[in-house]
Amino acid sequence: MVNSEFEPRRPVLVGDTADVFLQRTLTILRNESINPVVTIEFSPYRSGVICGIPEVLALLAKVLPETGSEVWALEEGETVEAKEVSLRVKAPYGSVGLYETAICGILAASTAWATAARECVEAANSTPVIALGARHLHPNVAANLDYASIIGSCVSCTTIQGARLAGVTPAGNMPHALVLLMNDTVRAMEAFDRHMPQEVPRIALVDTFKDEAEEALNVAGVLKERLRGIRISTTLERGGVSPDLVKETRGRLNQAGFSHVEIMVSGGFTPEKIRQFMNAEAPVNVFGVGSYIASSPPNSFEADIHEIESRPIAKRGRIPGITSNPRLHRVM
Amino acid sequence: MVNSEFEPRRPVLVGDTADVFLQRTLTILRNESINPVVTIEFSPYRSGVICGIPEVLALLAKVLPETGSEVWALEEGETVEAKEVSLRVKAPYGSVGLYETAICGILAASTAWATAARECVEAANSTPVIALGARHLHPNVAANLDYASIIGSCVSCTTIQGARLAGVTPAGNMPHALVLLMNDTVRAMEAFDRHMPQEVPRIALVDTFKDEAEEALNVAGVLKERLRGIRISTTLERGGVSPDLVKETRGRLNQAGFSHVEIMVSGGFTPEKIRQFMNAEAPVNVFGVGSYIASSPPNSFEADIHEIESRPIAKRGRIPGITSNPRLHRVM
Amino acid sequence: MVNSEFEPRRPVLVGDTADVFLQRTLTILRNESINPVVTIEFSPYRSGVICGIPEVLALLAKVLPETGSEVWALEEGETVEAKEVSLRVKAPYGSVGLYETAICGILAASTAWATAARECVEAANSTPVIALGARHLHPNVAANLDYASIIGSCVSCTTIQGARLAGVTPAGNMPHALVLLMNDTVRAMEAFDRHMPQEVPRIALVDTFKDEAEEALNVAGVLKERLRGIRISTTLERGGVSPDLVKETRGRLNQAGFSHVEIMVSGGFTPEKIRQFMNAEAPVNVFGVGSYIASSPPNSFEADIHEIESRPIAKRGRIPGITSNPRLHRVM
Amino acid sequence: MVNSEFEPRRPVLVGDTADVFLQRTLTILRNESINPVVTIEFSPYRSGVICGIPEVLALLAKVLPETGSEVWALEEGETVEAKEVSLRVKAPYGSVGLYETAICGILAASTAWATAARECVEAANSTPVIALGARHLHPNVAANLDYASIIGSCVSCTTIQGARLAGVTPAGNMPHALVLLMNDTVRAMEAFDRHMPQEVPRIALVDTFKDEAEEALNVAGVLKERLRGIRISTTLERGGVSPDLVKETRGRLNQAGFSHVEIMVSGGFTPEKIRQFMNAEAPVNVFGVGSYIASSPPNSFEADIHEIESRPIAKRGRIPGITSNPRLHRVM
Amino acid sequence: MVNSEFEPRRPVLVGDTADVFLQRTLTILRNESINPVVTIEFSPYRSGVICGIPEVLALLAKVLPETGSEVWALEEGETVEAKEVSLRVKAPYGSVGLYETAICGILAASTAWATAARECVEAANSTPVIALGARHLHPNVAANLDYASIIGSCVSCTTIQGARLAGVTPAGNMPHALVLLMNDTVRAMEAFDRHMPQEVPRIALVDTFKDEAEEALNVAGVLKERLRGIRISTTLERGGVSPDLVKETRGRLNQAGFSHVEIMVSGGFTPEKIRQFMNAEAPVNVFGVGSYIASSPPNSFEADIHEIESRPIAKRGRIPGITSNPRLHRVM
Amino acid sequence: MVNSEFEPRRPVLVGDTADVFLQRTLTILRNESINPVVTIEFSPYRSGVICGIPEVLALLAKVLPETGSEVWALEEGETVEAKEVSLRVKAPYGSVGLYETAICGILAASTAWATAARECVEAANSTPVIALGARHLHPNVAANLDYASIIGSCVSCTTIQGARLAGVTPAGNMPHALVLLMNDTVRAMEAFDRHMPQEVPRIALVDTFKDEAEEALNVAGVLKERLRGIRISTTLERGGVSPDLVKETRGRLNQAGFSHVEIMVSGGFTPEKIRQFMNAEAPVNVFGVGSYIASSPPNSFEADIHEIESRPIAKRGRIPGITSNPRLHRVM
Repeated sequence: MVNSEFEPRRPVLVGDTADVFLQRTLTILRNESINPVVTIEFSPYRSGVICGIPEVLALLAKVLPETGSEVWALEEGETVEAKEVSLRVKAPYGSVGLYETAICGILAASTAWATAARECVEAANSTPVIALGARHLHPNVAANLDYASIIGSCVSCTTIQGARLAGVTPAGNMPHALVLLMNDTVRAMEAFDRHMPQEVPRIALVDTFKDEAEEALNVAGVLKERLRGIRISTTLERGGVSPDLVKETRGRLNQAGFSHVEIMVSGGFTPEKIRQFMNAEAPVNVFGVGSYIASSPPNSFEADIHEIESRPIAKRGRIPGITSNPRLHRVM
Repeated sequence: MVNSEFEPRRPVLVGDTADVFLQRTLTILRNESINPVVTIEFSPYRSGVICGIPEVLALLAKVLPETGSEVWALEEGETVEAKEVSLRVKAPYGSVGLYETAICGILAASTAWATAARECVEAANSTPVIALGARHLHPNVAANLDYASIIGSCVSCTTIQGARLAGVTPAGNMPHALVLLMNDTVRAMEAFDRHMPQEVPRIALVDTFKDEAEEALNVAGVLKERLRGIRISTTLERGGVSPDLVKETRGRLNQAGFSHVEIMVSGGFTPEKIRQFMNAEAPVNVFGVGSYIASSPPNSFEADIHEIESRPIAKRGRIPGITSNPRLHRVM
Repeated sequence: MVNSEFEPRRPVLVGDTADVFLQRTLTILRNESINPVVTIEFSPYRSGVICGIPEVLALLAKVLPETGSEVWALEEGETVEAKEVSLRVKAPYGSVGLYETAICGILAASTAWATAARECVEAANSTPVIALGARHLHPNVAANLDYASIIGSCVSCTTIQGARLAGVTPAGNMPHALVLLMNDTVRAMEAFDRHMPQEVPRIALVDTFKDEAEEALNVAGVLKERLRGIRISTTLERGGVSPDLVKETRGRLNQAGFSHVEIMVSGGFTPEKIRQFMNAEAPVNVFGVGSYIASSPPNSFEADIHEIESRPIAKRGRIPGITSNPRLHRVM
Repeated sequence: MVNSEFEPRRPVLVGDTADVFLQRTLTILRNESINPVVTIEFSPYRSGVICGIPEVLALLAKVLPETGSEVWALEEGETVEAKEVSLRVKAPYGSVGLYETAICGILAASTAWATAARECVEAANSTPVIALGARHLHPNVAANLDYASIIGSCVSCTTIQGARLAGVTPAGNMPHALVLLMNDTVRAMEAFDRHMPQEVPRIALVDTFKDEAEEALNVAGVLKERLRGIRISTTLERGGVSPDLVKETRGRLNQAGFSHVEIMVSGGFTPEKIRQFMNAEAPVNVFGVGSYIASSPPNSFEADIHEIESRPIAKRGRIPGITSNPRLHRVM
Repeated sequence: MVNSEFEPRRPVLVGDTADVFLQRTLTILRNESINPVVTIEFSPYRSGVICGIPEVLALLAKVLPETGSEVWALEEGETVEAKEVSLRVKAPYGSVGLYETAICGILAASTAWATAARECVEAANSTPVIALGARHLHPNVAANLDYASIIGSCVSCTTIQGARLAGVTPAGNMPHALVLLMNDTVRAMEAFDRHMPQEVPRIALVDTFKDEAEEALNVAGVLKERLRGIRISTTLERGGVSPDLVKETRGRLNQAGFSHVEIMVSGGFTPEKIRQFMNAEAPVNVFGVGSYIASSPPNSFEADIHEIESRPIAKRGRIPGITSNPRLHRVM
Repeated sequence: MVNSEFEPRRPVLVGDTADVFLQRTLTILRNESINPVVTIEFSPYRSGVICGIPEVLALLAKVLPETGSEVWALEEGETVEAKEVSLRVKAPYGSVGLYETAICGILAASTAWATAARECVEAANSTPVIALGARHLHPNVAANLDYASIIGSCVSCTTIQGARLAGVTPAGNMPHALVLLMNDTVRAMEAFDRHMPQEVPRIALVDTFKDEAEEALNVAGVLKERLRGIRISTTLERGGVSPDLVKETRGRLNQAGFSHVEIMVSGGFTPEKIRQFMNAEAPVNVFGVGSYIASSPPNSFEADIHEIESRPIAKRGRIPGITSNPRLHRVM
């Protein structure tokens, strides 16, 4: 289950991103010659879609001793309950203690992103959802965000690195910038068609200069059968995308004989807004979702020691001893 | 204003974390021999504390041509209004276009974190706040999160890398793990005292095994004047930290002659919860805040082209031409 | 104070629009030879802008005996408090009793409309408001509605009959129908300009076929200085009119040198929506308000007998005798 | 389907109640020699009970050319959905264009009134409802209001003209004025009984001077079997009508042997208040409803051109071409 | 400060109304020969008007040893803050421990009642309030309830025993029963006038059989100057008492020359309802309040040991040692 | 059905706790020689569990004449509807009139308490509930409160007098005072065990000095099989009792081999809080409820005369004559 794509970065391995008190603890214990085998259980605050397990395993594979360690985990992408043990590590404290910060962080962020993506996918029913979150978060985690979105059942994402992690083809048509630089939507789309390889679908962004329905007909009139679809991402200042706009554009395209042209929408979509479109029976072919997934607050993980040298123990508020969870399976 | 600590990572520089449609756009424009000088303005959705400018400049310094480019920006840590232009880049589109995703992402995340930190600091009035967010977010951005917390006026943070970026000393006392492994709070504190350098303050975590007030007296009775403070981070299952608990602990410490011992609290603190403690006049000496800062949804940035070769232009919903903002100053 | 424009219609005079029990009452009293002089007081349920007094006087002038009757009233257009006596009629019951239904009805409807208009005018501060309510109510009262809107301080209205009652010039530019029939906004505006007298202001409706800002520039580019203004009345399906749309259109018109072109907006405006536009500093020159005024629920009037032959009397729930109100003045 | 009772008034026919821009449009088109056959569709904003169709047809019968015009409509009194096409007119624009204001106005007002009446009737289950709205609206539309109330399933109304339009007998017993002028409820009722024809039911208003239950017994004791019912319309200042008051009056009447006397209630009844009485099992025989029906805000109608000379067309926000609606049937 | 009226009942003295675990505790301590002097502090959960101190002192005077005991308390009727120490008893535990239940109970109930009464009095501004609570609570505490109402600033109460405790004259006019048994309000009032001593004010209850305003005039017409006032306590089934009813009755009384007749109201009055009457400027002369005061939930008191033999101590959640409160003064 | 335990107190019998107007009424009627047999019906404002019937009967048995009186009542502990007649007394007014205040008061208070207790018992499903209300109300009614709690289905109560009235054994373990005076929880429990009779269950209060779970293990370790249970009543300042705390304590007790030790909880329990514990599957063995029952506002009773000498009569708002209720049965 270890994925070589998740090679841990050096600062993580040496503990530069760990809470400094963990480094201090290791120093103290070393001086006191204390290094028992402990069992640490990791569990989330809220329910969700577990994500980040392979990345954690890639880290543990670097640091745990080959013998005497055991790791159990849920399956990547499964749903998890609030407070359910999702990962259990049994290892010498000296080998694993330093990575509590990183493990909690990877799981907290990835699980939150995958859960948010799954909510969108479920709201969209069988209509595909593409993850557009990269521009909303720091580039250091853009690929992790895209990977988690795919685990949350999005069909594609926009960064090359994220798509590689998740094993999919990245998606993306054209930015407003291209239309502005070509100074015309139809000319921009003709250039796109001229220079892009055959396998890249021709999808035109139609809200830059003119009325969306008018521009959709303009582009379709030129690219005809080669046009795979249009994307509408109207600014809020101009009313945003609405079910009515999608229906009218669909209607005008169909009347003009362009019923093969698909409609992709983006711009502030949330599960709630997707459901509004579905309930209004807006004829959307693809939803693009960015900020909702990127804005999902981390689903923080607790790391609790439940055994020391197989003796049950726990801090106040926790019940000593291993917490039974038949859904865990051994992964290391 | 370029900070060498913010060396951009390779995948960012080659565009692996960019939206793939930007790479496609560059290909098309190159084939069409189009590469005008454009003016791009970046502005946030919400008001807040601007953060991430030095990191963006470190990136631009690598990619913009030395002559003919201009960059204006707000000062790191200033407050910014919703939709206020915070960064303006004038450069050949072929040099800057690919980095729209990364620039928006750095600013969106950093600004959100710094803003959340500032809210906590303002709620705490003159009581210092320490950032504990690292374990709630992916380790790839733990240092960026800590840096932004300091920009948001926290006095310290917990990761070595984050403290280095921000130019402060990292903070951190002891985890529950140390107490559990030493099997006793007093023994754990004695070991801490034995092995830690003189400059590390002695702060005991007192909620692991016993009643917090009882344990505070136990520890103080042993370390006496050497004890700098105690930390209370009681689990929610045991009622969490409350103003009443802080007051009682303070009262019992004072009655026993330990009025020099400071009280640090942590665990689910938000500006609202900090204000409740301040209003209740709870005698807190330090607040620790983690998940609130890490959970702040990104304050997404819009990147809009407002000029092409000095000619005003804009997509629908924006007003063509440079947006006046006298608070911007030239940084490159 | 009697206005000849308010000639009462025949069915009202013969009592065909009265509650039938009033006719029955008159029959009974005649048979019993009872016809005392009564004092009836009319007062509204809610506060508002009193309207309809001249129309009521035109009716009473037809039916009251020349001697022995007295009528007091508030000034048309004044504000009135809830339950404040607004009209007091002292006359033989046999002459006035039948008209209770009509008097209450005229005052209830007119006062409600004038009040709603006044709310819009106050929200708009010094920006003029035009009444567009005619198409929302039955044509039998379209003129009364328009008259009341002017009493409520609108600057103009759309029906010829209403404008005549109120003594103003009717306002109105072009419907979507004209644009659709000319098949082009610019051509429609050129025809308008060709055939309308000089004193009719040239105001173009710009949301029929194309993007509003684009079309505004098209029309201004052709009519130039002769263009007085544009009207935006975008359908809700296309996002409606918004402060941002007005600002952007204003910005693009100004950049193109058409700062003399005014902007009129219409479509679902209420005092609340007007205030949103004012607070957002949207550069609106004229507000058009229709359904809000027409939808105002009637401010029903109570008609209570307080004296019979100068003897105080009243039904349960009312206090016998004339209700003092120094704001009333004698009008007949 | 044309009803001769709905003779259109002259100002409507000559366009004095039309929006003035329609008259201007006709002038322009005449000068441009443009007069195509158009298809206009009328549809309401909200769902409801369609009303006003016969009145619109009476108008169209006066103005449309005998050949070449077509009119389809829903059945008067049917329920209609929001945005459902309720009326479709195909005619030369020059013949129909001027009447857009009047047609929308008739349908908007009448449909709103009929819908409000129907809500009351449905709340009252099988207890009959009488429309008392005349005094709450302008006398120019009192008859139209009463007609619409009957279309909305009220059993009767109070104006002679309204009852004639709807083909029912008007209802009405006695006003407070009669009691006040006779100075005694029993004497008023005796006079009523003396002078009214046999077919007018004897219904006494019992809340003018004394306790309602006491007065009901007084009147019943005198009129005995000839008393058909009593009406309670207590002012709000005296607590209004309540289920408890009806029950107690019923109980005291029955104990005194007057179980044949019906109880009618009126005064501020709404569907909600009717339901409260029904849920409380108040023994009401007739509900009178006035202001609720008269206060119903107009259900405004959109008039949209969907074809010009059989070619599909529409403004932005609408889909070009005829909107399919199998419920429409041809009426002209 | 000990009031002989508050003679404690025998079951309280022997502990039959105490929590049984207190009796068990005394047995255990006696067997263990433990009987230290303790300091117990009593404090309420909520803020309010302290009441019950004299009754508690009457109890303590019976049970505390003459020497070596100390009691401090707030002044009866003062306002007290939430958690403020209101009573402090220093005595041998064996003498005072058994009475913790009774002391808490007396203070909790009395303070709640006095506080509720004070709220009514403050709402009524300078209009007097009479306590009518007796029939809403068990007769064993009716007098205590009335006493507390007077402490809360009511001017009188209805029970003889309560008035004696509080040192006032009881108030009360006539019940509906008297009117029903005399079968007529005027006859009942005449009998009252005949048989009651001169000093009992003549106040007629006027809502039993007839309209209140009508009956008020009837009674005033007979008793004339001897009538001190009327009381209105209309049932909710008949609309309850309302500001409008009071105003109308006042108006009709004044018009008939009976401006000396006062109006007392009762029936479901709360501070909120009193404020509504005051805001509506209803001419009320006396408010009667019953269930609101009787329904006040007890303001429970905590009894905490803070010293044992002058050594600070406390259970978890309390701060050991005497709690400073300069408002306490020594009473025993 | 007369219970000798409910001996009425002298002030009640002589009318010192009655509303003084009842005494005045009796004086007047005596002077007028009026003393008819009346039928008075008592009914509550709200639905609930009827309680107080035996106490009322004990009073009536003392005052009603042996012949000619009849009393009907509901069964003690039955549910009663709002306004349902619960008690009907037919007797000479002179014998019963004075006791209206006391009868209403007994029923109002007792019914409210029994109802509140029943709500708790229903929320707790089959887990037993003990009434701890005595310290929240005046000692004069502590026994009545406890009796009513048992009628409301609590299994026990804390006062000796209340338990005697209800025919149960009082419950109660130890107060914080015992622990404080013994200065140690284990020592307090050992003394309890030494001196209490065998039949008193050994239940330790474990929240006075130390962590509850820690202390539970301490006590169980000493008393072993003799320990029946522990009680947790943690102060709110320390987080109160929570489902998590109960679960953890249960878990630690079981792990240490003390699965026989029961857990009782108390402190601010309401039906809502009990339901939260039940829903969270907290392993509670006994709930203690005090302030919720004692805080129940009285369910006031109306006393209405419905017959005088068998003639139907009633005040306004009531229907004359006996109100049929087949659930009543004759008790005297």
